[in-house]
Amino acid sequence: MRKVTVNLGKRSYPVAIGSGILSSLGAYLKKMDIGSDAFIVTNAFLKNKYGRKLAQGLSAKGFPCHFKLVADSENSKSMETAGQVIKELAGFDHKRKIFIIAFGGGVVGDLAGFVASVYKRGISYVQVPTTLLAQVDSSIGGKTAVDLALGKNLVGAIYQPRLVLSEIDFLKTLNREQFSSGMAEVIKYAVIKDKHLFCFLENNHKKIIRKDPSALEYIIASCSRIKAEIVSRDEKETRGQRTILNFGHTIGHALEAAGAYRGYNHGQAVSLGISAALELSLDYKLIDADSAQRIRDLLRLYGLPLKVRGVTAAAIIRAHYHDKKFSGKENKFVLSAGIGRARIIRNIKLDLIEKAVEGLF
Amino acid sequence: MRKVTVNLGKRSYPVAIGSGILSSLGAYLKKMDIGSDAFIVTNAFLKNKYGRKLAQGLSAKGFPCHFKLVADSENSKSMETAGQVIKELAGFDHKRKIFIIAFGGGVVGDLAGFVASVYKRGISYVQVPTTLLAQVDSSIGGKTAVDLALGKNLVGAIYQPRLVLSEIDFLKTLNREQFSSGMAEVIKYAVIKDKHLFCFLENNHKKIIRKDPSALEYIIASCSRIKAEIVSRDEKETRGQRTILNFGHTIGHALEAAGAYRGYNHGQAVSLGISAALELSLDYKLIDADSAQRIRDLLRLYGLPLKVRGVTAAAIIRAHYHDKKFSGKENKFVLSAGIGRARIIRNIKLDLIEKAVEGLF
Repeated sequence: MRKVTVNLGKRSYPVAIGSGILSSLGAYLKKMDIGSDAFIVTNAFLKNKYGRKLAQGLSAKGFPCHFKLVADSENSKSMETAGQVIKELAGFDHKRKIFIIAFGGGVVGDLAGFVASVYKRGISYVQVPTTLLAQVDSSIGGKTAVDLALGKNLVGAIYQPRLVLSEIDFLKTLNREQFSSGMAEVIKYAVIKDKHLFCFLENNHKKIIRKDPSALEYIIASCSRIKAEIVSRDEKETRGQRTILNFGHTIGHALEAAGAYRGYNHGQAVSLGISAALELSLDYKLIDADSAQRIRDLLRLYGLPLKVRGVTAAAIIRAHYHDKKFSGKENKFVLSAGIGRARIIRNIKLDLIEKAVEGLF
Repeated sequence: MRKVTVNLGKRSYPVAIGSGILSSLGAYLKKMDIGSDAFIVTNAFLKNKYGRKLAQGLSAKGFPCHFKLVADSENSKSMETAGQVIKELAGFDHKRKIFIIAFGGGVVGDLAGFVASVYKRGISYVQVPTTLLAQVDSSIGGKTAVDLALGKNLVGAIYQPRLVLSEIDFLKTLNREQFSSGMAEVIKYAVIKDKHLFCFLENNHKKIIRKDPSALEYIIASCSRIKAEIVSRDEKETRGQRTILNFGHTIGHALEAAGAYRGYNHGQAVSLGISAALELSLDYKLIDADSAQRIRDLLRLYGLPLKVRGVTAAAIIRAHYHDKKFSGKENKFVLSAGIGRARIIRNIKLDLIEKAVEGLF
């Protein structure tokens, strides 16, 4: 078991990563003075598979549980679903102190975290991420949100959990697409901050693909540490440091939006976004051609796409200009300055962006 | 014109109080780098009465305006209305930087502030409160919220505005009930923190009732200063200092809840809550009988009730135990320790609370 801390003064919290640690959740919570009643937001698949074990572990430590099921779909990240969850939460919140467990992937984590942030102006919650993507990224750092028809994550809060518990064993049930989607974020971390992790990913492909627990624990702990360090220094993304986490996400988000959130999963979109960002990094002479090629090779090795299908370049560029990260005519890109280093470049000219997007076709 | 500052480091903001200052709103905003497009949340009455003037003043300073009307009713403080406002906001938020103006009483302020707190994880907003109640209380301090069927203000955030502009001239249109509702909060401030204000209220009743601008400006500035000082020291109500603002509100909220939010307006409920709190203050020998009588006389002088009708004592006590301020069996009351001083007392025995509530009948 490995432990990483997100340092935010009084609001600091641990990220525990390991195999077989779900059974310790009750003991963790007991030590934290988190409340008395657990309100668990999850989906039917996860409840069927792990619900009994989770509830038994919590009951043994004196926490009554209530499960609230939401559909396992991005559609659950809506104001409507948030409203339903809040109403059920309020109904279950009698005289004792309630807290939330977000038990699922990014959708459940973002939704349940948002509910925790606004109910009674903020109650405690913990993240128990069940996908690789959620374990290395969305469960850490307190970004919570729901979507609007006009765009993803348009309603939300930055509101930190009290604990993140990343159980490696959950990853066994992920299919290949889900797993490689998470690997896109893992590669992102390696490219922006951790050359050692990058080499590990190059050299341990087989172990990782067959989900060797110790390899996964190393990867998830490495990514968690990077995310924790960045969040500790720039919680609200006001100092530019958290921005580097958006590497591959600017064009990636535009691509997701242009495909109306269906064409590509998040990891695939990030992989394509990284590919476009590498093109810009080459234009700006921040990275040499060999390193860019190594990064692309690594993405391909983990089954991630480098070429776009099913959307037009024009649609991606249009969606790019709708991204919430842009106010007015400004834009801001995270580029690669060699493996393990990132640079933020502002106001890149439209023709360069277009060229990078067109390079994806 | 008087100015009070809420000191919260980088998030500090001014409260401007005066007669004829609405026309300066555009100039204020221009200096603040608040954004480019104004999204004004208000109701039909206020838009008809002041909308053109407001929009002209803003347009003259280069701010395009969009009005979003909500019903002038507590029902507008709902998740559903918040969702509608957010959707319209997102639709109006194209390429430029949008901000919100909450133009109305407490309902509009709480709703629009909540929307500002969650849209894009927080955008700028300003409060332009139009009722006495909102000017002296809800517009300052960043408490934003919507209601659930199960209780008031159960969903929200503490999220500070960038500016509060309290235009005294708005108060001319308030009817007697609306005005006296605000006076309950004014009297609350005087009782917990400002003996000088208390004497001013005793000695200038006629001036105040006929809405003399300089008397109102003095009152609103005094209350704003008290609220600003308390919020500056205890923004999130974690240090117990903000708690004293709940004087009269514990039983007051229970009474509103027991009457299903219809029996009494907020000020009337607070007046009755103060009356019950005085009873407890006498029980605890924190206040002498003469001072308690002076406070009750002042409430009566401003048309506020001291006796309950239309609800039962049992319903009030039941609702009291549902109040979100109580976790488990704990309770926490703000009592008066003489005019101008408050004390927090924890875990008052139920029979004393019952006696205080029954004293209202």
